[in-house]
Amino acid sequence: MRLKRLLLLLIGVTGMTGVFAQQPPLERVEPAFWWAGMKNPALQLMVHGEKIATRTVTLDYPGVTLKQVHQVENPNYLFLDLEISPTALPGTFLIRFSKKGQKELKYTYELKARNTAQKPLGVTNKDLIYLIMPDRFANGDPGNDIVKGMQETSLNRDSMYYRHGGDLQGIMDHLDYLQDLGVTALWLNPVLENDQPTTSYHGYAQTENYKIDRRYGSNELYKQLIDAMHKRGMKMIKDLIHNHIGSQHWTIRDMPSKDWVHQWPVFTRSNFRDQTLFDPYAAQVDKTLMTDGWFDTHMPDLNQQNPYVRNYLTQSHIWWVEYAGIDGFRLDTYSYNDAEYMAEWGRAMKLEYPSLTFFGETFVKGIPNQVFFTQGNTVNRGFDTELPGVTDFQCLWAMNETMNGKPGWDDGVNRLYTTIASDFVYQDPTRNVVFLDNHDLSRYYSVVGENMDKYKSALTWLLTTRGIPQLYYGAELAMKNFSNPDGLVREDFKGGWPGDKENKFTAGGRTAKENDLFNYIRTLANYRKNNDVLQTGKLMQYVPENNVYVYFRYNSDKTIMIIMNTNDKEQTISTGRYAERMGGFSKAVNVIGGTPLPAIDSITVPANTTLVIALLK
Amino acid sequence: MRLKRLLLLLIGVTGMTGVFAQQPPLERVEPAFWWAGMKNPALQLMVHGEKIATRTVTLDYPGVTLKQVHQVENPNYLFLDLEISPTALPGTFLIRFSKKGQKELKYTYELKARNTAQKPLGVTNKDLIYLIMPDRFANGDPGNDIVKGMQETSLNRDSMYYRHGGDLQGIMDHLDYLQDLGVTALWLNPVLENDQPTTSYHGYAQTENYKIDRRYGSNELYKQLIDAMHKRGMKMIKDLIHNHIGSQHWTIRDMPSKDWVHQWPVFTRSNFRDQTLFDPYAAQVDKTLMTDGWFDTHMPDLNQQNPYVRNYLTQSHIWWVEYAGIDGFRLDTYSYNDAEYMAEWGRAMKLEYPSLTFFGETFVKGIPNQVFFTQGNTVNRGFDTELPGVTDFQCLWAMNETMNGKPGWDDGVNRLYTTIASDFVYQDPTRNVVFLDNHDLSRYYSVVGENMDKYKSALTWLLTTRGIPQLYYGAELAMKNFSNPDGLVREDFKGGWPGDKENKFTAGGRTAKENDLFNYIRTLANYRKNNDVLQTGKLMQYVPENNVYVYFRYNSDKTIMIIMNTNDKEQTISTGRYAERMGGFSKAVNVIGGTPLPAIDSITVPANTTLVIALLK
Repeated sequence: MRLKRLLLLLIGVTGMTGVFAQQPPLERVEPAFWWAGMKNPALQLMVHGEKIATRTVTLDYPGVTLKQVHQVENPNYLFLDLEISPTALPGTFLIRFSKKGQKELKYTYELKARNTAQKPLGVTNKDLIYLIMPDRFANGDPGNDIVKGMQETSLNRDSMYYRHGGDLQGIMDHLDYLQDLGVTALWLNPVLENDQPTTSYHGYAQTENYKIDRRYGSNELYKQLIDAMHKRGMKMIKDLIHNHIGSQHWTIRDMPSKDWVHQWPVFTRSNFRDQTLFDPYAAQVDKTLMTDGWFDTHMPDLNQQNPYVRNYLTQSHIWWVEYAGIDGFRLDTYSYNDAEYMAEWGRAMKLEYPSLTFFGETFVKGIPNQVFFTQGNTVNRGFDTELPGVTDFQCLWAMNETMNGKPGWDDGVNRLYTTIASDFVYQDPTRNVVFLDNHDLSRYYSVVGENMDKYKSALTWLLTTRGIPQLYYGAELAMKNFSNPDGLVREDFKGGWPGDKENKFTAGGRTAKENDLFNYIRTLANYRKNNDVLQTGKLMQYVPENNVYVYFRYNSDKTIMIIMNTNDKEQTISTGRYAERMGGFSKAVNVIGGTPLPAIDSITVPANTTLVIALLK
Repeated sequence: MRLKRLLLLLIGVTGMTGVFAQQPPLERVEPAFWWAGMKNPALQLMVHGEKIATRTVTLDYPGVTLKQVHQVENPNYLFLDLEISPTALPGTFLIRFSKKGQKELKYTYELKARNTAQKPLGVTNKDLIYLIMPDRFANGDPGNDIVKGMQETSLNRDSMYYRHGGDLQGIMDHLDYLQDLGVTALWLNPVLENDQPTTSYHGYAQTENYKIDRRYGSNELYKQLIDAMHKRGMKMIKDLIHNHIGSQHWTIRDMPSKDWVHQWPVFTRSNFRDQTLFDPYAAQVDKTLMTDGWFDTHMPDLNQQNPYVRNYLTQSHIWWVEYAGIDGFRLDTYSYNDAEYMAEWGRAMKLEYPSLTFFGETFVKGIPNQVFFTQGNTVNRGFDTELPGVTDFQCLWAMNETMNGKPGWDDGVNRLYTTIASDFVYQDPTRNVVFLDNHDLSRYYSVVGENMDKYKSALTWLLTTRGIPQLYYGAELAMKNFSNPDGLVREDFKGGWPGDKENKFTAGGRTAKENDLFNYIRTLANYRKNNDVLQTGKLMQYVPENNVYVYFRYNSDKTIMIIMNTNDKEQTISTGRYAERMGGFSKAVNVIGGTPLPAIDSITVPANTTLVIALLK
């Protein structure tokens, strides 16, 4: 299988342009349209067509100047630098590609009017993110399960590595469910076309940058989904992959130039060592391997030092915000990208959309390893990363230790305490996304040995600590399995498919145990949603004692006390030590269930439980 | 035992001044003398004598002004603020304490001439530090083993918690030995008077700030030792304890004021949680406990927010540099001190002695935890810590994992690699002191399970990595034992006492195994001493592969390749990957033994071994 992939890959990238070079005279222009009145007046059009580089390009439109026409190695490409002045009005104009003795080619380019009412909402600590693997959540349109002419046309729900048929319509159909649960933002694994021969379901091997995969729906449907979400006050996070594209991406099948991707004499994988980036003593060969090595055989590593690659990627991201109304980005495999490009990209996004938010995947171990990538850090680079937030893997590792470790001075819940205490290293740790699992990780219910008390305890932490909490679809049902093999953590959400025997989207379809968990999460998520103290309230944490970790979220209106007992036995704590936060309060209620506590000077917490208590005067 | 200590303590500190208040009319002035021409013109004299505060103070000396006389709670104290102008000449003058109807008291104060030839040498990565517990190294003067009138007069070499009789003369007698080994700097555990009833041997419960413990020798002898060391190019590091003093310190027996130390209603130990200092979310009660809680029952915690305490400590440290010619300081229990005071202290030292160096004990776990204390960090404080270096516990934890951990992506030697890679967090990591053990830690030979290969491998790393290496006395003999109970790692150096059956100071007294180790360390330490490439040379490290860690030290003259094989099996590595550092070299010799390598394109390293190879053209 690996060999087969490699062969496909080699055909795709090693100068075999001749094989695929039979293009229509003007196959495509990307971005296909743009908008008048963007902050950045520069726009670089990528034009693809057979021997298009032999033609002369002209255009004539008030306020639009063709500044430069770039030829590259492959004559099937041209890159056109346009300058769109602030005075340019929405409208259409012809771009003419002419050649003596040949029929003139024309492309009607449109500058659309911007939707001034639309502004990225941004995803912040006021939100609860729900991550969905679109192929595995709900199949709202069985008609798009198999699209003829695409490379992978099989559908096999019994196999974890084939497509299952989930789609955007399926997500749209369950917004009520998600909103009821308390979710305010969706992060979908990538939904752009992955026209790959195998394992196209995960979405991380894109073959198009401007097209939703037809098996998920269409660009229009994606926009409709976002509009529907916005009407509910929900936000959409788009998963961006700067680092690589699919081996069947159209720019790989007919490459603009050899340096479109990082070339290696033989397939060379990244060393996956983030350390090489910040290590003051790193060897260049290790650094290059980290950044330029490929993530996988079917994922050519984009050369982000190529300015055309940069423009192509950056513009496509702006295009999607403007076209569909994206609210935030999740940046895949962040550490593998060219750091200077990512900073440039960050500046471009902030210039165009100050209210847009984004966070990078930093699948690393170690607080210095993680903080290195975050905004405010210029070390070993000389420029700011411009990355506001990261996926907070350090909190996850700490939670694993908290739930499964052996208690000790630096171990057990003390690891969590220390990790949060180390927040001084961040410019703003509240922009970090906290989570217990995702599509690459073991499901947390399995991680905690299917101990429901521990699982609830961990989820309670997730919804009450600082940062932006993220749930993985099915977490509310205690879906299980380990990430090796990864497919097992990407099982279907039962009830998402017509004919499913069980429907976990409804209380009636859930077991008593599932309903108990679902209701627990829903209660806490909605409490969080309705009480900004758990969103933006200040945090105060105390040194754990006897493996009991106490922290508070508080603002001028409310004070919430959270007590995490990581012992296998019930614990009773005297609260005198917490006077700094408990002073002035005489009563308390349990946020789950609303039952008053018998007293607040001494509080009993069951084994492996995190209590959330609202203090009252 | 603990109860007994506590009682002694309570007598000492809880306002029992009446008991001890019978002082001579003018018991002491500290510092007893000073120097003309110091950079800081301010000097605060602490005067102690019965009801001294009822007297009027005058003095008359050109260039010296009595700016202010401070009374405190206890009338047995006065604090005199003197200003010594740059024009004041060396000489003596009378300080008069007068009171109507009483005989005038006089103190002859001397301003000595500074020794302009003497300048702190500073301890840097050019050095190899050797830590000695003076009571346990060598007894050069049996005449001072028991000093009548002191509280602890027993001598019992069979018990780890009694005095054994080691002293400064014993150290002086073995400078040849130390210099032969390759040592260039000595750090002695504190040698100031510890006139405590029990466990006075360790030195960390000082009862005087200006007097060498008579059981070690005298101030004069200490100075002679340093002079002797300087003649050999060796440097002296003084161990300073800002945080606490002994419960029998004279200022505790008759306290200037209650706020001389941190007072608690009942004995309250520190929580020993460095996190409370940097945690943006810490509760004040936890912070206070960390800084103001006592280290131990017999160690009252000095109140460093009391300006008299500050002056008293800081001046005594300057006094010792000026008096004895100290080259560097090791700062005990650094994290427990008042941060603002320690910064002020750092600035005072740098002002007076730009060439002096100092490093703080940061017995913490976590890179953020450690870096927080180092120079360049202002976070959560608003001022620079002014601490150039720290005891690099993070490297030690990483070495423990390297030697004893299970190999893994983030484990085994990868932990060491990552820790060093994280050096980007430091302003200058070469000022950190690296070590494998000390008086508080298990001896490393025991840590590695008495595996001599591993032990040598670890020592080889110590002498070839970045930073200032530190050995603990007896490391060169593979002395063993675990730090619990701590006394066991403070055994006598055999041969240091008259009549010892064995003498490990001589080759003849050492076993073959001990000589092998001794010679190994001596060879490497002297190679390091004679080749600045291992001191100040640049470092380049490679991502470990197959649990083999390769790094280089290099400068314009030399390139040294270090290969650490942490496997239990011999490994042969192909060196093509290291071309960036090996280019231009065709041969190599093993630094230990000087034997040439058969080839450099492929190198075989025995199990659990670190090779040090000098590359040759």
